Amino acid sequence: MITLQDPIDMHIHLREGEILKNILPFSAKYFSACLAMPNLKIPLTDTNKALDYKKEIQHNAQELNCDRFSPIMSIYLNESITKDELLKAKKADIRILKLYPKGATTGSENGLQEILNQKTLEIFEIAESLDFILSIHGESNGFSLDREFEFGEIFKQIAINFPKLKIIIEHLSDRRSIDLLHQYENIFATITLHHMIMSLDDVIGKGLNPHHFCKPILKTPKDRDAILELALSGDEKVSFGSDSAPHLQSNKLKQNGAAGIFSAPVLLPKLCEIFEKYNKLENLQKFISDNAINIYKLKNIPNKKITLIKEKYKVQDSIRIDNDFIVPFLANEELIWRIKD
Amino acid sequence: MITLQDPIDMHIHLREGEILKNILPFSAKYFSACLAMPNLKIPLTDTNKALDYKKEIQHNAQELNCDRFSPIMSIYLNESITKDELLKAKKADIRILKLYPKGATTGSENGLQEILNQKTLEIFEIAESLDFILSIHGESNGFSLDREFEFGEIFKQIAINFPKLKIIIEHLSDRRSIDLLHQYENIFATITLHHMIMSLDDVIGKGLNPHHFCKPILKTPKDRDAILELALSGDEKVSFGSDSAPHLQSNKLKQNGAAGIFSAPVLLPKLCEIFEKYNKLENLQKFISDNAINIYKLKNIPNKKITLIKEKYKVQDSIRIDNDFIVPFLANEELIWRIKD
Repeated sequence: MITLQDPIDMHIHLREGEILKNILPFSAKYFSACLAMPNLKIPLTDTNKALDYKKEIQHNAQELNCDRFSPIMSIYLNESITKDELLKAKKADIRILKLYPKGATTGSENGLQEILNQKTLEIFEIAESLDFILSIHGESNGFSLDREFEFGEIFKQIAINFPKLKIIIEHLSDRRSIDLLHQYENIFATITLHHMIMSLDDVIGKGLNPHHFCKPILKTPKDRDAILELALSGDEKVSFGSDSAPHLQSNKLKQNGAAGIFSAPVLLPKLCEIFEKYNKLENLQKFISDNAINIYKLKNIPNKKITLIKEKYKVQDSIRIDNDFIVPFLANEELIWRIKD
Repeated sequence: MITLQDPIDMHIHLREGEILKNILPFSAKYFSACLAMPNLKIPLTDTNKALDYKKEIQHNAQELNCDRFSPIMSIYLNESITKDELLKAKKADIRILKLYPKGATTGSENGLQEILNQKTLEIFEIAESLDFILSIHGESNGFSLDREFEFGEIFKQIAINFPKLKIIIEHLSDRRSIDLLHQYENIFATITLHHMIMSLDDVIGKGLNPHHFCKPILKTPKDRDAILELALSGDEKVSFGSDSAPHLQSNKLKQNGAAGIFSAPVLLPKLCEIFEKYNKLENLQKFISDNAINIYKLKNIPNKKITLIKEKYKVQDSIRIDNDFIVPFLANEELIWRIKD
């Protein structure tokens, strides 16, 4: 039996409407808090939009009787953001800015064309002074496997120029990024489950597997192993962020297939399995909750204990959404830990 | 206007039955000869099977009134092959053995589990003495992007131990393989159109593109550029082999999607465009025909001239096969050279 105190997912795509309704149970029931990404169809570019979305999530959580679930909100960084807007956000307890380079991933059409210009530097300065956290999807527009590495220079420049601004490397995917955590006091990271256990070979190594296609793309086995090691270590600069990203099957299996892995249904069981396998269960609580609370200075986390028992079961093959469906990560595979309801 | 003398495709998948019938025109009309790959549903593991298949191709070519088209046959290398079998093959004018490592690609289930063992070394020795050519799909079972490079050691060992055996690196995809052509007199290569102009980014760089998924997988932009340069140079050790590989859409767009790019409909126009773009039209004849004739000592090539004129047109979006269809490479894109019928 494993008991986790307040599991927190610091990077998740909860979507809207029918999909939100259908996928929220996987997070709201078993996590105390989730950082909801702001790259919706109408991106959450200001406080009001973020608060409206928070209400939609909370409404759905109430319908599920999940009263002890806190959606953590973020604002989609854009050049229109003002100091007044950030002050307003802070009053509403929103303290995270999410930066997308334009075109880097799903829903990044409204991202920054230029990461470092006069306007963004002003925003970073205000963000720093107001104790905001800057979460970054850090990828260049270069060759897929080098995009995160090439973005490293930008991470460095922001870290050096705004030393009190906490910067998060979201879904760290390249082992060459790990050095940044050690070199810069104000650089942190989130790590996904899938980057801990898969490499590019799981996408293209045999047949093509669209359900393992994600951004940032899975990299080499060496990257995978280094990321796994970092997560298992319980390193205090690293928190868990699943980047769980549901896409309808019809959007996955097409010529220009959508990037994203819907891992929400398997997160805690699979993490228990991995941490147990490598004899690192003592670090799981840090990775899944404590580090996030410390890094993001999270408050008012509902006191929620999640217990897992050793019991084999098969992951469901799909979640129906109207006339379509979503295939979860590890569909039809066997898990050995089950969450006790 | 460009006129090509006897275009030859030294690596093509022509399939069988209904698909063969529908795709053969793209090759039989515009090429003088094609090396038909032996990895069919029933692999061409001996002379009789290869000759039966040759008849099927020839029958279809006759139906198309393509009397000046020579299918070049190969035999699927397997441990049952004897000297008598190779003597028989030679009498039937079959002089190419195709080696697949087991599991490396589509239709490689019957490939070699072990590339270098007593039995295969015996076969290589016989092949050398009978002046056979050994065409190799050279990939290890390691990480996708290193598979061809890792196979390099085996290329070297065969080249050193059988110095009179001509060895072909099929669909060379990794720039690190190019050295082998220079280091070993008896190592040659074929190059595809798609490895000359695309990288892994064309598969996974934006949305997922199943129609660019192939084996060996497209590699880095540096690999692409080095392969393009090699092809453009007209290097006498390199001949053109499209690896055109049609797959039904239903097999492409699924969880375990099939590897292969159906490039046959666009080969000569696109090659003209590229060689013209880089001011290397003077080398196209070598790449598309002369080098192959020299390397493989091809005889009885029908005297066929193919003329291309500058005229823009859009590549068809699909080729219907019963209730399914095949999407060609560059579907819906504009080409600037057209084959004059």
